[in-house]
Amino acid sequence: MNRRAVLSSFFFAALSFAPVGNHVIADEQPLFGYSAESSRAERQWEEKLRAIPSPENLRAYMQRLSARPHHVGSPYDKDNAEWIAAKFKEFGLDTHIEQFDVLFPTPKERAVELVEGGPKFAAKLQEPALPQDLTSNQRDEQLPTYNAYSIDGDVTAQLVYVNYGIPEDYEQLDRMGISVKGKIVIARYYHSWRGIKPKVAAEHGAVGCLIFSDPHEDGFVQGETFPSGAFRPPDGVQRGSVADMPFYPGDPLTPGVGATKDAKRLKVEEAPTITKIPVLPISYADAQPLLAVLTGRVAPEGWRGGLGITYHVGPGAAKVHLKVKSNWDIKPLYDVIAKIPGSTFPDEWVIRGNHHDGWVNGAEDPISGQVAILEEARALGELVKSGWKPKRTIIYCAWDGEEPGLLGSTEWAEQHYDELRVHGVAYINSDGNGRGYLRVEGSHTLEKFSNDIAREISDPETKLSAWKRQQLREIADAKTSEQREEIRKRSDLRIPALGSGSDYTAFLQHDGVAALNIGFGGEDQGGIYHSIYDDFYWFTHFSDTDFVYGRALAQTGGTAIMRLADADLLPFEFTDFADTVQTYLKELKALSQKMQDDIRERNREIEEGVFKATDDPKRPLVPPTVETVPPHLNFAPMENAVDALSRSAAEYRKTLEHANANGGAALASASLAEVNKMLIESERKLTNAEGLPNRPWFKHQLYAPGFYTGYGVKTVPAVREAIELKKWQQADEAIIVVARVLQDEAALITSVAQKLSGGK
Amino acid sequence: MNRRAVLSSFFFAALSFAPVGNHVIADEQPLFGYSAESSRAERQWEEKLRAIPSPENLRAYMQRLSARPHHVGSPYDKDNAEWIAAKFKEFGLDTHIEQFDVLFPTPKERAVELVEGGPKFAAKLQEPALPQDLTSNQRDEQLPTYNAYSIDGDVTAQLVYVNYGIPEDYEQLDRMGISVKGKIVIARYYHSWRGIKPKVAAEHGAVGCLIFSDPHEDGFVQGETFPSGAFRPPDGVQRGSVADMPFYPGDPLTPGVGATKDAKRLKVEEAPTITKIPVLPISYADAQPLLAVLTGRVAPEGWRGGLGITYHVGPGAAKVHLKVKSNWDIKPLYDVIAKIPGSTFPDEWVIRGNHHDGWVNGAEDPISGQVAILEEARALGELVKSGWKPKRTIIYCAWDGEEPGLLGSTEWAEQHYDELRVHGVAYINSDGNGRGYLRVEGSHTLEKFSNDIAREISDPETKLSAWKRQQLREIADAKTSEQREEIRKRSDLRIPALGSGSDYTAFLQHDGVAALNIGFGGEDQGGIYHSIYDDFYWFTHFSDTDFVYGRALAQTGGTAIMRLADADLLPFEFTDFADTVQTYLKELKALSQKMQDDIRERNREIEEGVFKATDDPKRPLVPPTVETVPPHLNFAPMENAVDALSRSAAEYRKTLEHANANGGAALASASLAEVNKMLIESERKLTNAEGLPNRPWFKHQLYAPGFYTGYGVKTVPAVREAIELKKWQQADEAIIVVARVLQDEAALITSVAQKLSGGK
Repeated sequence: MNRRAVLSSFFFAALSFAPVGNHVIADEQPLFGYSAESSRAERQWEEKLRAIPSPENLRAYMQRLSARPHHVGSPYDKDNAEWIAAKFKEFGLDTHIEQFDVLFPTPKERAVELVEGGPKFAAKLQEPALPQDLTSNQRDEQLPTYNAYSIDGDVTAQLVYVNYGIPEDYEQLDRMGISVKGKIVIARYYHSWRGIKPKVAAEHGAVGCLIFSDPHEDGFVQGETFPSGAFRPPDGVQRGSVADMPFYPGDPLTPGVGATKDAKRLKVEEAPTITKIPVLPISYADAQPLLAVLTGRVAPEGWRGGLGITYHVGPGAAKVHLKVKSNWDIKPLYDVIAKIPGSTFPDEWVIRGNHHDGWVNGAEDPISGQVAILEEARALGELVKSGWKPKRTIIYCAWDGEEPGLLGSTEWAEQHYDELRVHGVAYINSDGNGRGYLRVEGSHTLEKFSNDIAREISDPETKLSAWKRQQLREIADAKTSEQREEIRKRSDLRIPALGSGSDYTAFLQHDGVAALNIGFGGEDQGGIYHSIYDDFYWFTHFSDTDFVYGRALAQTGGTAIMRLADADLLPFEFTDFADTVQTYLKELKALSQKMQDDIRERNREIEEGVFKATDDPKRPLVPPTVETVPPHLNFAPMENAVDALSRSAAEYRKTLEHANANGGAALASASLAEVNKMLIESERKLTNAEGLPNRPWFKHQLYAPGFYTGYGVKTVPAVREAIELKKWQQADEAIIVVARVLQDEAALITSVAQKLSGGK
Repeated sequence: MNRRAVLSSFFFAALSFAPVGNHVIADEQPLFGYSAESSRAERQWEEKLRAIPSPENLRAYMQRLSARPHHVGSPYDKDNAEWIAAKFKEFGLDTHIEQFDVLFPTPKERAVELVEGGPKFAAKLQEPALPQDLTSNQRDEQLPTYNAYSIDGDVTAQLVYVNYGIPEDYEQLDRMGISVKGKIVIARYYHSWRGIKPKVAAEHGAVGCLIFSDPHEDGFVQGETFPSGAFRPPDGVQRGSVADMPFYPGDPLTPGVGATKDAKRLKVEEAPTITKIPVLPISYADAQPLLAVLTGRVAPEGWRGGLGITYHVGPGAAKVHLKVKSNWDIKPLYDVIAKIPGSTFPDEWVIRGNHHDGWVNGAEDPISGQVAILEEARALGELVKSGWKPKRTIIYCAWDGEEPGLLGSTEWAEQHYDELRVHGVAYINSDGNGRGYLRVEGSHTLEKFSNDIAREISDPETKLSAWKRQQLREIADAKTSEQREEIRKRSDLRIPALGSGSDYTAFLQHDGVAALNIGFGGEDQGGIYHSIYDDFYWFTHFSDTDFVYGRALAQTGGTAIMRLADADLLPFEFTDFADTVQTYLKELKALSQKMQDDIRERNREIEEGVFKATDDPKRPLVPPTVETVPPHLNFAPMENAVDALSRSAAEYRKTLEHANANGGAALASASLAEVNKMLIESERKLTNAEGLPNRPWFKHQLYAPGFYTGYGVKTVPAVREAIELKKWQQADEAIIVVARVLQDEAALITSVAQKLSGGK
């Protein structure tokens, strides 16, 4: 088949924008980005692929990989890496282990004690083994309960309860006239990534931070606790990293470069992402005696948890001693990298990954995802043996050190930055898996692509396509009839943007490689996250017990990788993307307007005496003060850029339609390889070299984790966060930067369209 | 002063619609309904009145009246009535005690036991005495914890937790596939009047009902419990009536007639307002062991309380034995009635009331309100001694038997029905009092009047007027900028309509006498409602400890009574009223539209398969079934009637303005006495003889307690409840009935306007 034939027929697929819902796609309708001929072949190969993954294998892999604790630096972490590498090799992939050396603190001394203001009490800081749960008693190999990258410290101070410990909680504390300066704060998990809590506490002058799992969101309030049920038992503790990952993820000592043996390293004392104050996570059994003796103001309604006590804010007589001391060692990371070389475009890389390290036995997190990609790799290996030849190079990765700070993926993406900037087509991540709905988040240019994949996957429970089930879920959850109508009528379901919290971060936000994060969930209850109980016993009793959702994930990931690897024209689509960027612009304008309105209204209420009049003298609050009303921002550059983006996206789409209408004659001069190279650039163009203001590691101008949310995405972060932080000049400047990036993107898309239509 | 002079000058006041906010009203601006001259005099008398009430007296009265339990039929109930009567006499009022004889059951046997499915447990059903709280140990005189008018019963059955036990909770139970047929339900207090819970449970086939106070809304979750704090302690129980008061209040044996010695009585077995199943209230200490052993489905999120356990719905192995047996005795009621005769219009009655009976010592409920009206009576008595002569007859009432079912006020209002229909100008109720904001609810024709009164009262904490403080509170609480702007710009603050729950009910809803309910509150925490701890110790430690809000209530009630009693022209105002009725019409149309939209949407989702697709097979729900889309209702008759009402209200207002403009010459022929008589009719016109569909005792066509809310008002109840219950034909019929009533009201207002402008 010559190139011209390819060009003229694959545009058929480009026309198929209409949703196909739950129906079987007729063989005749080519896949998006495929010629009729290659589409037929692709469908057959994909069907073969989806028949291969086996729940029995997934179960066996999980049992093996979660049999012992396998955190960074542990013997079983290395053992697992080697076993995974052996498996990839067995499946026929060209595999090696790539090692990095990173700072990974492990606890030496830990103490939380009530020393004044109540009955003396020393927190247990220990999760008990359970007789029926055989791996829960591997104490010698388990990491103690702690928060990695807490600075060492030994402090004794009054205790203040700060709810979730996020900025708005401190605004409420200010109104209550309560300062945490010189105090130890106790915050509950949730409503932000955990690393935000000590960061914000330290910004407000606290000297220590405890983080506890409240049964309200993570324990008996939700349902039966383990081992009777899936939820967190009284002594269960959520371990986890508290490094300042929204500043930069990865090894704290080697920002921006791979942590190879001889990399230039910061000193530990210089590492900016280590916390400023000592932090420990505690169970609700350990938290209860501390919270119960707090006095002072009764906690506001939204601050009350499920402990069966009156929650108070403090401070009072209660004084707590907190001690954290770590071994600050350099530990090896073992990233397993396995390749299937591309036959046509070997320099275009389609990458798939999941991490293999866990906090303890980590059956759900991460092994439930890791086993699915092992089965994908096995299935792809089978296809290769049967004669399948992917056009592009496929790379399967099993990352180490995700838990402490996305270490393995970040170091690899930093180390291979230059290659990835040239060769990276897309990165598809998973990180655990469970019962429920297929959730896809990621680059909006892959929205249509990911919708197409979801339409191919059968939900094991309902036998609907994963796409259809998700659509019906979104209809059920929609809050307004407008939302429902959009969900019903729009060709594709919108996919949320990516913040952080897993290994896609460095690819998307540092390297500018288009990324997706996929996994099933939403019907998988759980309260064993980052505890010793996240193990094979728990998973096979309370989660995807028959591994059918594991199989579905392998089918989804495998199909997606194949379809990207085999496409004639890379399936990036820009009209959905431009549509979504328009909504971000609208949000930013509305946010800016709302801040003006809110401040203007509050000033008026201050002048009217509202706060004075409604203050209860027996429970007085500090009144707010008059604030300058924010200026109007100049959104025009961004408005023009987003319009340009919409025009170019329409042009590209029209070019595909037009090319198809006249049989592709006008495309004779177009080079498919060149066009694909340009399409790969479309995500890169959304980054800039300077990165975000004050956090240059983050290069992407559309997606970033929030500086004060940690996982949660902030789209158009430079503009949005400047507005949120009331930095008006910075917001105006950021609008110009983002506008330039979007103008460049629009120009690129226009060039692609011109190239396709034979121009240039 | 001749009548003409009066007529020409008091219309000045009618023009003063603009809000005067917090400013001192110049003596020159006459009060609404007053001539310039009588306004000046009135102001002086009112100022004298407001100087009289004394916190010390309020405190002393409370200590005396709450010194012993004083429920219906108790020795101290009679003693209090006689003491109050003696006080009224001492103040110079013409006082008598009016006795009725009513059915009042008191408990003989009570038991709640866990007999299967957990450790054997017998509920304590007893509130312990506290050493520091001296009246808490009067066990011999205390009524045990129980719900009055529970039918006798002795049942043993599985237990089901039904959340608040309101109709929507049963819809959720249906979705969960759980039936309460043959079961005992356990419901938490709140979100409906308590009598609704056994009523709805019985409608669904339950055989018994427990009602408990959950610490989430009434206990330690809210704050420190008594005696450390104001909130409900573990063994505290909320007593209360469970008679079907939304069917009719008052003595269950004498609906519609006064329960005099020789009244015709139903047999106890025939009384329709006694519950169909046995009911007992329990503390959260008694509820916890029952709820803790429930199994089955985990309670949905909104159903989870504060007990520090996993809430389950049941049923399961847990079986409960519930026994209730009462003495079904006839007991005497002692209503204290005290009068100051009117000098000019003795046949126009201005009535003020609060009840004197309590469930136990009842310091907060009702004595904190009762003592304020005692001080009002003393103050008015002082004024009379100084030469003040109210134009109208003033009647002060201290009702007995409010707690079991508004008995004293209802029997009196039934007994004196014919007189009240002729003479009743207005009834102003209180029922307890606390720290905080002046709250006024009632007849919308008295909205402007009550706003004017609130402007005269100084808030003890902020020294703002009660009106201004409330306005600023409403600005602070408003959810939208439209709401805020209305609050800022509208002349008067809207007052909520009255449902039920206190002694205004029979006056307003049976007799058609315009009514207001007034009291301060909102900063008074509490968890002693209807328990032995509602006593002098609690009140003087945790509520209006210095009785300054008691004084403010006496000032408010006294001013309101005086201003009604002395007015030249009764201060009913109809434009605010018509404006509010317009909003009710809008609500009804929106409700009808929403029910169509919701059912249409749900049907669509059923057809799309939303419920099937989103069902979790491990926790399956019963899917809803397709339902006929409701028909369009014919709102036109009501639309025309409400328009007529608005026109007539505008006409009345214009007449006042015009009459003023030409010096009142056109009014020469108008008779003030006649006009006032017509104005009194304005509330009567809103009732009809047939009453509401299926509950004829309730005559008012604009306000009623909801049949399934109990206290909460349903405005335009015949129409609104028909729509809610999906009785479309009944809704269409009710619209016609309500339209007729409103047309009659409009005609009356037009007649008043014509009479005033000299026509007839």
